Amino acid sequence: MEYQHGGDIYSREIALDYSANINPLGLPPGVRKTLKQCVEGELCSLYPDSSCRALRQALAQHHGIPEEHIICGNGAADLIFGLAAALRPERGLVMRPTFSEYEQALKTVGAKVEYVSLDERRGFEPDLEAMCACVRQAKAEGRAYDIAFLCNPNNPTGIPSRKEQVERLAWECERADTLLAVDECFCDFMEEWEECSVIPALKRFQKLFVLKAFTKLYAMAGLRLGYGLSFHGELLKELSLVRQPWSVSGLAQKAGEAALKEKGYVKETRALISRERHWLKDRLEELGCQVYGSRANYLFFRFFPATGNRKIGESPEVFPRGWLYHRLLEKKVLIRSCSNYSGLDFGYYRICVKTREENEALTAYIREVIQG
Amino acid sequence: MEYQHGGDIYSREIALDYSANINPLGLPPGVRKTLKQCVEGELCSLYPDSSCRALRQALAQHHGIPEEHIICGNGAADLIFGLAAALRPERGLVMRPTFSEYEQALKTVGAKVEYVSLDERRGFEPDLEAMCACVRQAKAEGRAYDIAFLCNPNNPTGIPSRKEQVERLAWECERADTLLAVDECFCDFMEEWEECSVIPALKRFQKLFVLKAFTKLYAMAGLRLGYGLSFHGELLKELSLVRQPWSVSGLAQKAGEAALKEKGYVKETRALISRERHWLKDRLEELGCQVYGSRANYLFFRFFPATGNRKIGESPEVFPRGWLYHRLLEKKVLIRSCSNYSGLDFGYYRICVKTREENEALTAYIREVIQG
Repeated sequence: MEYQHGGDIYSREIALDYSANINPLGLPPGVRKTLKQCVEGELCSLYPDSSCRALRQALAQHHGIPEEHIICGNGAADLIFGLAAALRPERGLVMRPTFSEYEQALKTVGAKVEYVSLDERRGFEPDLEAMCACVRQAKAEGRAYDIAFLCNPNNPTGIPSRKEQVERLAWECERADTLLAVDECFCDFMEEWEECSVIPALKRFQKLFVLKAFTKLYAMAGLRLGYGLSFHGELLKELSLVRQPWSVSGLAQKAGEAALKEKGYVKETRALISRERHWLKDRLEELGCQVYGSRANYLFFRFFPATGNRKIGESPEVFPRGWLYHRLLEKKVLIRSCSNYSGLDFGYYRICVKTREENEALTAYIREVIQG
Repeated sequence: MEYQHGGDIYSREIALDYSANINPLGLPPGVRKTLKQCVEGELCSLYPDSSCRALRQALAQHHGIPEEHIICGNGAADLIFGLAAALRPERGLVMRPTFSEYEQALKTVGAKVEYVSLDERRGFEPDLEAMCACVRQAKAEGRAYDIAFLCNPNNPTGIPSRKEQVERLAWECERADTLLAVDECFCDFMEEWEECSVIPALKRFQKLFVLKAFTKLYAMAGLRLGYGLSFHGELLKELSLVRQPWSVSGLAQKAGEAALKEKGYVKETRALISRERHWLKDRLEELGCQVYGSRANYLFFRFFPATGNRKIGESPEVFPRGWLYHRLLEKKVLIRSCSNYSGLDFGYYRICVKTREENEALTAYIREVIQG
């Protein structure tokens, strides 16, 4: 199967990559320093702590959640697949469009996946009312979902849901005995993160599981580190049993501990992303793109001259990943084509918000390919 | 669940660890150099290559096997659990005693596990005849195994099987439509590795899968890197689908490429292990241990005064992991208790063969606790 996520700078020559949603500030200096020390010492040769004790203690302090309610993984994706293996769901519910690995993981265990389709005319706003209704109705019909996934802010759109809405959904899930997995991997990039995260509500919902990652926020994608938070003790135990004992490398554990100390870096990141997202959105709109309401460190837009303007030809046969994607690729510039997202077709793209210089470079390239 | 593998230097204070079977030469200098460069550059912030292309090319050259028959994982354990997820076996066959993760992985998917028990009176010699007979009989009775695991050399005993025997088993498995997973993670430590490895036979057996790891041979346990080799194309494809796309970190991939260049290091390792294993075996026997016929980088022995000599008390109630284990732990010395291996009880231990100085230290400690 062809790889269809962002960040594939390996199958072609890429000079500039806007397809992976990584913090443009790069690895925090404190993390790099820690990694250097680890590489010079003996850590690489030791089996990692299977329970990630020191890291979990640091996370417990960071979130104000007891460490026994925290589980670490080899990136958040390890835990997404782990949830499927641990729960063996028969039925799952996801939004459409959303991050494709939820569906992929559910399918590995033969689960039937149902969708709440987001309406383009409503700007792909996450429809938590519809999620609640589905969960309730499935329960009433005796075919309750075993699990529902919510990505907050959503991916690829970047549009967040407010925590009151998510808690409402968590409440419905609790009543329906449906596990609600809320992926907050991009939540920390938002200035309004506190209005969205349900981590403070975890203790009120037994069936709530929150996914987090170091990967994106701390620009550690090459190290792989994610974690989950939940008061569902049985689930955490099962998640440990269905996965290998050493999924999180020793380097990733140490890097994670160091990253949590980088409070200034995170603040700086939020300010940068907010400023640059606005700037980049304005430029994309000037260039004729339909930009949706992202609050995250990426922008989701449509660039597809559906009517008239035949200068810019686009057809799914000729450009299966979209005209803009292919034209930019010719210039060794990689953006994320969203044509493989369930519910989207060619013409939709996602780009990462980076530094001003990089954002200027991207807009200049887009202008160039449009002007031919 | 309590962690019961080697290398747990985290839950207690440990000064000397002989429980994890890691190359005592430590990280090869070329690998450390590569890691330093990676940590100073941008690699940690990039998503790793999901297909591990460069590493698989290097492995293809190393083994003389086309790269499309190679799959990389987050340690061999990632692929062991992956095999269970990909095959969804109903029945599995393993030896007893052997590495416990095969059974653990099989149980995560609800497989029924059957055993070929190795006979202590025959020195725990791997019984491939019995394996063949089981596979044949199960097939004849219409309840063929979906998968059989063989650890070669076996763990914890270190006793290898000759490749002719393994190929005979592979042939039986082929006829029974049973996947044979041969774990050769410790094979490269043996001077007689060529007499044991079935990698050259892979192309003759569609249902043969060989597991390998960088973890032990190159002392990279903290980095996590393993791989599998097989001509079963469908299985490799399925193994990719049931696991997350980014299981192998970018650092591990680069380290693996660098490690494959360390030919001298591997030769030096084999010579050291052979010499030191003989030395250590003699000392353990002098100390009253029953040492079995390991050819690997670890020794498996029994230390259990079953009759007479009540000076050294031992009972499973008082010392669930064995008297020697507990006495050494008091001195901050960690050995592997084998009491949790299926088919073994307290009184069996495994220790890693290390440098002369370290081996002398261990034997001195054992002498001390016996005399003490």
